[in-house]
Amino acid sequence: MWYLNPIKPINQTARNGAQDRQNQLTKPTGALGQMEAVVIELAGMQGKVCPTAKQLYICTFAGDHGIANAGVSAYPQAVTRQMLYNFATGGACISVMARHYNAISQVIDCGSLGGAYHVDGVEQFHIAPQTQNFLLQPAMTAEQCEDVLNIGKYSVETAAAKGADIYIAGEMGIGNTTASSALAALLLRDSAESVTGLGTGIDDKTFAYKTQVIAQAIDKYQHLDDPLEILRSVAGFEMVAMVGAYLRAAQLGLPVIVGGFISAVCALCAVRINPSARDFMLFSHKSAEYGNQRVLDALNATPLLDLGLRLGEGTGATTAFGIIQLACAVHEQMATFGEAGVSDQNS
Amino acid sequence: MWYLNPIKPINQTARNGAQDRQNQLTKPTGALGQMEAVVIELAGMQGKVCPTAKQLYICTFAGDHGIANAGVSAYPQAVTRQMLYNFATGGACISVMARHYNAISQVIDCGSLGGAYHVDGVEQFHIAPQTQNFLLQPAMTAEQCEDVLNIGKYSVETAAAKGADIYIAGEMGIGNTTASSALAALLLRDSAESVTGLGTGIDDKTFAYKTQVIAQAIDKYQHLDDPLEILRSVAGFEMVAMVGAYLRAAQLGLPVIVGGFISAVCALCAVRINPSARDFMLFSHKSAEYGNQRVLDALNATPLLDLGLRLGEGTGATTAFGIIQLACAVHEQMATFGEAGVSDQNS
Repeated sequence: MWYLNPIKPINQTARNGAQDRQNQLTKPTGALGQMEAVVIELAGMQGKVCPTAKQLYICTFAGDHGIANAGVSAYPQAVTRQMLYNFATGGACISVMARHYNAISQVIDCGSLGGAYHVDGVEQFHIAPQTQNFLLQPAMTAEQCEDVLNIGKYSVETAAAKGADIYIAGEMGIGNTTASSALAALLLRDSAESVTGLGTGIDDKTFAYKTQVIAQAIDKYQHLDDPLEILRSVAGFEMVAMVGAYLRAAQLGLPVIVGGFISAVCALCAVRINPSARDFMLFSHKSAEYGNQRVLDALNATPLLDLGLRLGEGTGATTAFGIIQLACAVHEQMATFGEAGVSDQNS
Repeated sequence: MWYLNPIKPINQTARNGAQDRQNQLTKPTGALGQMEAVVIELAGMQGKVCPTAKQLYICTFAGDHGIANAGVSAYPQAVTRQMLYNFATGGACISVMARHYNAISQVIDCGSLGGAYHVDGVEQFHIAPQTQNFLLQPAMTAEQCEDVLNIGKYSVETAAAKGADIYIAGEMGIGNTTASSALAALLLRDSAESVTGLGTGIDDKTFAYKTQVIAQAIDKYQHLDDPLEILRSVAGFEMVAMVGAYLRAAQLGLPVIVGGFISAVCALCAVRINPSARDFMLFSHKSAEYGNQRVLDALNATPLLDLGLRLGEGTGATTAFGIIQLACAVHEQMATFGEAGVSDQNS
């Protein structure tokens, strides 16, 4: 039960120092809007008046979902494995973005359909070929859930050991917006209609069916109160790994950038398990996936971007990383009014 | 009257080619939202299926405003010149951002108060120490206006000669949100209340006075129809240079990223002078300055970012450059479904 251990406290001295520095830089106070706010938050997380975004670490977790058999996605389940190959060979969107920012990349297959395989660049922790169909039974056993939380822990500890100053968890798993919507509805005690979206792009008939599947999951599991029990009942392996990663990152004081719908739902679950985990989360973007706003509201989060993204893999979070990196450079390198000999307001 | 000459046509073949390529990349169609849209637009502008954002060119134009004597700003006029020094020594926000993206930087003083000076890194075209107070007479003569339009032309031609693939015009000039609000109101035939904001951060009393100044400018110049006459009546030198830059960039087929309120108003004026100039404009952000949305609506523009920025100098446009550069990398380097052997939707 490592994930219930205390979260690292925010360094208020560094946070206040960053706020003071922002007020002295040669610009009107507040003129950089959210770019000021994010760097001040990051200062408190890293315990540095001038925080850094030099070494990004991106782990993409993948897993297959029993619920995908029910026909809730526009894509066949084979795509999960195919995309793992695509990550490994550098052709996926997250692969390109990782190279663009010189990130350290990690790809972890938590359990996917298609038999044994070996691909350089994909680490395998085959918990099972896929989760169970959550309409019939919980998606995974309590033991499997612990094992997958540990995968997330392992990834974050690797990132910290390699000197990462920001961590991003991405995901791949056909069917995982369905699992995420069910998880969101159960955590928020919300209706299926409030949290169900089009995922990768389904038609009206599939959408109606997907909504019904989520409503059935709510019926089946709404008696549960423990966020961990809810998690193992409906989530995919890759989602549980993300929850584990968010919890361990906060314990180690490593800031994470939370991505779109799926990772925000996982972030919410992490916060329900260990509330101070929220302290180490930055929020990247408002996903185009319906239901995302409700999850962000529950997390009291104002994301940086609203670009209509709905790709997953950690791509939204990585896009926001560029803004955060720029905000750190500006914060550290801009002259103060005193240094530049510029008259401050009303002087 | 070079600025009335034809604008380069958009390359529809390249634009369509970019759209086709986006549809074949290993992601759900449309899943990258505005990051897809911007790269497709850029492809049409540059005439390349895979457009580039490798060499950014940033010119910051500065100028002093006669209207600033009227007490419409939170800062003294001396700040315009002081900030020119700050640009030259690399301490301003735009200086840091330019370094971050390895941009070619240019700083042009179109006319500022404070007597003769020499600073490495600042090019001087001293049209006059400042514009005239537009409540008393037009801000500049027709001849001065032509001269400053030529400064913008010169800057863009320099950028093109140096191999820039994207151009940003920034501005500095105490009082220039007042001039921009007046220009916006006259171009849009709108009220002072609709377009006046807090600029660098003024108090309620100054805001009321600023609104009144803009209302007086509307009264004085609302008989004018010619956008160029409106421009020279109320704008600052740095704003006219931006208009010239936008017009020349479109003639040369060099894409520009339009920034916040002031540059969007200048972009609108350029489009009123030569409508096809709109074809080469990308829009970076929704400024926190009140009135910005009306100008964006008039330009039928959906900017990429909404970060609450209101700093000027070209900083919003440069922040968006990072997103555009990432979008270009993704567009060029991602694998297609065919290349990666990934099953497309419903296959």
